[in-house]
Amino acid sequence: MLRQRGILLPAFDIYGGAKGFYDFGPVGGRLRSRLNQVWLDHWLSMGDIVEISCPTVTPYEVLEASGHVGEFSDFMTVCNQCDEASRADTLLEEHHPNPDALSKSELQNLLGEFNPPCPSCSACDWSEIEAQNLMFSTTIGGGSSGREGFMRPETAQGMFTSFPSLYRHFRERLPFGAVQVGKGYRNEISPRQGMIRLREFNMAELEYFIDPNQPIAHDFSPWSTMNFNLIDGEGKAHHLSLVDAVEMQLIRHATVGYFMGKTYDFLLGVGIDPDRLRFRQHASDEMAHYASDCWDVEIEGSYGWVECVGIAHRGCYDLEAHEKATGKTLRARREFSEPKIVEIDGWTIDGGTAGPAFRADAGQVKTIVESFDSNVEFPTHVTLSDGRILSVGLEHVKRVQKTVKETGEWYIPHVVEPAFGIDRILWHVLDHAYVETEKSGEPYRMLKLSSSIAPVDVAILPLFEKDGMDDVANEIHQRCCQTSGIVSLYDASGSIGKRYARADEVGVPICVTVDHQSVEDGTVTIRHRNDGSQTRIFIDELPFF
Amino acid sequence: MLRQRGILLPAFDIYGGAKGFYDFGPVGGRLRSRLNQVWLDHWLSMGDIVEISCPTVTPYEVLEASGHVGEFSDFMTVCNQCDEASRADTLLEEHHPNPDALSKSELQNLLGEFNPPCPSCSACDWSEIEAQNLMFSTTIGGGSSGREGFMRPETAQGMFTSFPSLYRHFRERLPFGAVQVGKGYRNEISPRQGMIRLREFNMAELEYFIDPNQPIAHDFSPWSTMNFNLIDGEGKAHHLSLVDAVEMQLIRHATVGYFMGKTYDFLLGVGIDPDRLRFRQHASDEMAHYASDCWDVEIEGSYGWVECVGIAHRGCYDLEAHEKATGKTLRARREFSEPKIVEIDGWTIDGGTAGPAFRADAGQVKTIVESFDSNVEFPTHVTLSDGRILSVGLEHVKRVQKTVKETGEWYIPHVVEPAFGIDRILWHVLDHAYVETEKSGEPYRMLKLSSSIAPVDVAILPLFEKDGMDDVANEIHQRCCQTSGIVSLYDASGSIGKRYARADEVGVPICVTVDHQSVEDGTVTIRHRNDGSQTRIFIDELPFF
Repeated sequence: MLRQRGILLPAFDIYGGAKGFYDFGPVGGRLRSRLNQVWLDHWLSMGDIVEISCPTVTPYEVLEASGHVGEFSDFMTVCNQCDEASRADTLLEEHHPNPDALSKSELQNLLGEFNPPCPSCSACDWSEIEAQNLMFSTTIGGGSSGREGFMRPETAQGMFTSFPSLYRHFRERLPFGAVQVGKGYRNEISPRQGMIRLREFNMAELEYFIDPNQPIAHDFSPWSTMNFNLIDGEGKAHHLSLVDAVEMQLIRHATVGYFMGKTYDFLLGVGIDPDRLRFRQHASDEMAHYASDCWDVEIEGSYGWVECVGIAHRGCYDLEAHEKATGKTLRARREFSEPKIVEIDGWTIDGGTAGPAFRADAGQVKTIVESFDSNVEFPTHVTLSDGRILSVGLEHVKRVQKTVKETGEWYIPHVVEPAFGIDRILWHVLDHAYVETEKSGEPYRMLKLSSSIAPVDVAILPLFEKDGMDDVANEIHQRCCQTSGIVSLYDASGSIGKRYARADEVGVPICVTVDHQSVEDGTVTIRHRNDGSQTRIFIDELPFF
Repeated sequence: MLRQRGILLPAFDIYGGAKGFYDFGPVGGRLRSRLNQVWLDHWLSMGDIVEISCPTVTPYEVLEASGHVGEFSDFMTVCNQCDEASRADTLLEEHHPNPDALSKSELQNLLGEFNPPCPSCSACDWSEIEAQNLMFSTTIGGGSSGREGFMRPETAQGMFTSFPSLYRHFRERLPFGAVQVGKGYRNEISPRQGMIRLREFNMAELEYFIDPNQPIAHDFSPWSTMNFNLIDGEGKAHHLSLVDAVEMQLIRHATVGYFMGKTYDFLLGVGIDPDRLRFRQHASDEMAHYASDCWDVEIEGSYGWVECVGIAHRGCYDLEAHEKATGKTLRARREFSEPKIVEIDGWTIDGGTAGPAFRADAGQVKTIVESFDSNVEFPTHVTLSDGRILSVGLEHVKRVQKTVKETGEWYIPHVVEPAFGIDRILWHVLDHAYVETEKSGEPYRMLKLSSSIAPVDVAILPLFEKDGMDDVANEIHQRCCQTSGIVSLYDASGSIGKRYARADEVGVPICVTVDHQSVEDGTVTIRHRNDGSQTRIFIDELPFF
């Protein structure tokens, strides 16, 4: 039905398709863009969050610093008979409970032991396992001056590299956040599971920058009477309010808990069934090494429980990595409540001797020397950022002993990141909205989509295209179309019953039927999708006018 | 100012930047997404247009069929001294009036004659000119089963390959259209001119499918009293109404003229100055060979007159090219007003002999034989789609002579395409909104942005953050934030005059000031950007509540 009704379709279908790529069709296109917009509005309404947009093509250095060049990979093996590449862990799923946690050599041993058949040609003849980076790589520019780059694997890096302009925009006051909605890319070795594992996907991420020393008084009152399904890092289920879970340190950071609540509100608002939603904490060996807490939102649907959102406390990992790689400062300043008196006992360089001795390197030498404590002994060696080693003698330096008043300090902000897989959420929105019943012995299919994201807001149905009914219907259609943000569908073919059924299939919340009486007295029938109820009203009383 | 205020910034700036890539910052991000949304709403309100969304990664075959693999290229030469690549035509701009119209050998001759200096190192030592394809290339999948692909150079191909689902969605009734807003990629050899020539850009395209035999009665009345600046294909200026220009065949197709009007409305709606906008017709040697008419919208700004929109009648070129490449039918059916009686005198295959003789090829042979007219002589040769040639004898065929009644026919729809460069339009929106005056001897800068796209809708300014003013201001800010689609900025630092100036710089239409009186009687001052006028109103009278 998704394909036939133009909601989701395999991309490049007339060319035989391409695995891991989907089209959002004539109906799905607006569903996707409305879901994106509801997501954006949801976060922008917090008042301290802005939207940014960064390129998808990303230079090598940026993704090297973020760790993606080194670590964003899967273990691949190629069938020696048919040349089809497969993920080694996927091949071994029947032989190990958790093969994606295994190392390369462990996988190699298991592959040798069980020698599973190729899913493509059934041969059992595998090449040696290799780590395959999952980024789409490309070249920026032409000729030998071309520069290596990748399609971004996530939108998050753009928010980190934009930290200086965000900090300026918010007039140097934390906390603040930035969101970005856009494409992410992951060159899966052998994509399966339709919309769940795509090579090009729609992401929506929020990076929220906080001062780790300044607890935020989040308002948990919207969720005070609600208990959430929480599975902790050991797999134990809890049924608790958010504020209790934060207080008992099951959720290890209040901001993580707060975003769990906000995420819950968003998902319910777009039609996710709360009974098929749970929060699952990462086990400590599953979590990225820099993260101090991470909760997935898992939603149950036709593929079982699927991770659709991740809410992670990333510490200062990302900003620190980009600081190291660029030498630029990505910090915020906090003022002390009262100035601190600091005794300094250390060293600086003597300009008169160090200048001529170290020339262009004098600045770097100064920074290093000033980081020494008082008991260092000269001469000593210092290592410059390019790896050169210089000898610094007592004649190049001066002892510094003074008392200074410091009013504040610079620190690297911490980041809490809710990251949303829009395609996976959309898949489950459709799954949870889908209702199949029977009408006169035939299956009857309906999408009970929330009116906040329904791709068509109203269908206008003239009973017949004659006797002025088509004119009245067309006029209503045009007036609906003129209404900002309303999409109207004019449908004149087939019986009214068939047209209702077609509208129900793509989740149109209301249908407006124009009949003979409409031409005479300006009334129409409104029919509501969810309960099939019909009422007769004047045209001017339609909800969009 | 664009950079400092977070509107547009060089991307990957902390990594030294990457030419041809821009970030939309904390202010520019929402400006971009609002412009996209206004564009979408503008076209969706026509009532016969839907939004779709297709992948940006595109398999080789699709872009080979569209002509991009063969023709989407620039002539490149590389400096033998510094390895920097340059466009040959750009190097020769001082030596020829129109170097981008020259062939490779003409460019090679001129390059040899004038030997211009390298813009990067000033050496005059160039490699032989090569055609460099401008698509970012990549590999889909891993190992030797990986498949060649590109980042799409335009969004249009997605609409063409989606024709079957569009045709089904519109219940097989033309005309209809599909729009797509998203990224396009062009791996420029040496990008210059900032936002005008990007390697990754924001596009918005409409493909409108029409029956060439069925003229559409477009309503030109919205523009009946307006004269447009039209430059014809010979460079001659006209000042005419659209309907007159269509009637005198200056604009060669009514649908092209209609979309020129709709495009004009969109551009004025987002703040483009009508006096710095003109329509320029492509000269016949400038137009793509398949196009029958093409008009650019040029907008004047800091880079002179720049092409920002192209409105082209593309004939049946695209659908035909994809039909040929895939063997799939991309056609619409038109019913005759009365059935046609057709005398058929030709051939078909004799299944009894042709089946065993041609086996799997029999279907293809049948199609070819049925396209022969009656006077062909057998045996004859037929060429299959894969290039193999078969001999078909008289024993394989049967003469067909019959009279049939045909009620309609299949045809390839024609396409009219308005294609918008969102970044270029956004650049000119900023350019035309920018006003620089003086205040107390200092330059005073303002963006008079249309409220339909202003990135911040309102700024809330407490006179001081004490005596309850901060509480009242925060409450107003939160209420504005809760209002769907409204972005509010809370700004408490510096004098009120400085905060007005900061708000004016990013084009905030209104500021709300909270002072001592506000705490007492619930009134605030509203200050309007464009004229600086101030009025005192009750909080509940604010336009967003």
